Amino acid sequence: MTTPSAPLTAGNARVKQARKLSRRSERSERRLFLADGPKAVEAALDVEGCVVEVFATLEATQRYSEWHGCVPAWTVVEDRALASLSDSVTPAGVVAVCRFLDVPLASVLEHVEATSRVDLIAICADVRDPGNAGTVIRTADAAGADVVVLAGSSVDLYNPKTVRASVGSLFHLPVVVEPGVRTAIDAARAAGLTILAADGHGEVSLDAAADILSRPTAWLFGNEARGLAPEIATLADHRVRIPIHGRAESLNLATASALCLYASASAHRR
Amino acid sequence: MTTPSAPLTAGNARVKQARKLSRRSERSERRLFLADGPKAVEAALDVEGCVVEVFATLEATQRYSEWHGCVPAWTVVEDRALASLSDSVTPAGVVAVCRFLDVPLASVLEHVEATSRVDLIAICADVRDPGNAGTVIRTADAAGADVVVLAGSSVDLYNPKTVRASVGSLFHLPVVVEPGVRTAIDAARAAGLTILAADGHGEVSLDAAADILSRPTAWLFGNEARGLAPEIATLADHRVRIPIHGRAESLNLATASALCLYASASAHRR
Repeated sequence: MTTPSAPLTAGNARVKQARKLSRRSERSERRLFLADGPKAVEAALDVEGCVVEVFATLEATQRYSEWHGCVPAWTVVEDRALASLSDSVTPAGVVAVCRFLDVPLASVLEHVEATSRVDLIAICADVRDPGNAGTVIRTADAAGADVVVLAGSSVDLYNPKTVRASVGSLFHLPVVVEPGVRTAIDAARAAGLTILAADGHGEVSLDAAADILSRPTAWLFGNEARGLAPEIATLADHRVRIPIHGRAESLNLATASALCLYASASAHRR
Repeated sequence: MTTPSAPLTAGNARVKQARKLSRRSERSERRLFLADGPKAVEAALDVEGCVVEVFATLEATQRYSEWHGCVPAWTVVEDRALASLSDSVTPAGVVAVCRFLDVPLASVLEHVEATSRVDLIAICADVRDPGNAGTVIRTADAAGADVVVLAGSSVDLYNPKTVRASVGSLFHLPVVVEPGVRTAIDAARAAGLTILAADGHGEVSLDAAADILSRPTAWLFGNEARGLAPEIATLADHRVRIPIHGRAESLNLATASALCLYASASAHRR
């Protein structure tokens, strides 16, 4: 039984330093971000060298005692101090300070090529909503994708809402931040991938694309409100539409990406 | 050219009466709700007898002048009055007061049976997030489903966030509010539907369910955090899991329902 020092308050300098990571500028400068809640922290701890420090309430240090061996530094804080670090309405008692995880696209493609094959990539072009970006990462992970690329003017990968919506998947597969959408498309094509644009007006129906889908594929998903810019969609090898059987005009980004990525996953396993 | 009377202010009694519809109790009592933005209003106007009154800014009455023939009553309001009726951060200038649309499950099943066949139903059991409920309605519409049932302790169908997330689909297909999940299941089965529970631990994989999926189907979707209660899942004819190819633990409700409903839609069209 150790005698813990008094939990730190919300006004403590270390807590304040960590809290500043809710700002994008601060994250970019220090290349650190916050992972909130036990699922995210556990997934972060699985990535070697990712977690710098875990802030936890006294109760949470006990509840998650099985992590003690792998947490490099526990900092026990008061409930209010923890809440000040958490983006959640009901903070779960643990928040980890993590190192940035994104990797250059080229290195991922080389690495995966060396070991096996790149089968499936999701490229998000100008996706602005953090929840959507996180959900696409989660869905891509579930569909067995190799890489997710946040391209163009997409939302910050380390926005707390993105991290939360990814439910740990941000820590499961390589994620690339690439300001150039064309650069990402060129790199994917150079790695031997067929580029498919998810496009409500596409010339190919997802239901009739079995041949195309069986190839190694990079899916291109556009902005949630405007879709893909025509000059980007035209760069793809094919533009694929999800059939609309009812009267809805379209699907939202998360559901559209799920249907496309899973269609590829099924085709690759057939 | 008509001479419009002065736009009503946010303090006007009619505006205040309409604003009260942001409260569930008020909606239930008056059986009226608000549809916000041009897409929702346009879809509402397509449903005979649904729209009671349209509140609009002067600019919006001009922009949507093609609706003049079908709007039973235009009420021109100041920008601030319109904003007070809108749930949106950037109100689009039009909000309609609409009559409740939900119908009893029995009547829908009878009706559809009389005209053609019920092929596809989505039953949401205890779905709590309004955005999720709206997205499932939108996705079900896109997948060509015949009916959506909000069952059990699901969120209010007429919550402004549900209406918004449905992007008009609430007005496209029959929606049922049924407090009894078992009642909904029994009615669907009586109408000849196979009951499939979307269940992460299901005994059948969605990828290997072609035979099952080709039947007329009622999908059962559970709460976003807890999934389906075991005693409900067990009532289904089959429990179907979406294969997870990567390391994600699960998919979110919206993406899972999209994959299930579209799998049925494809199977029915094969």
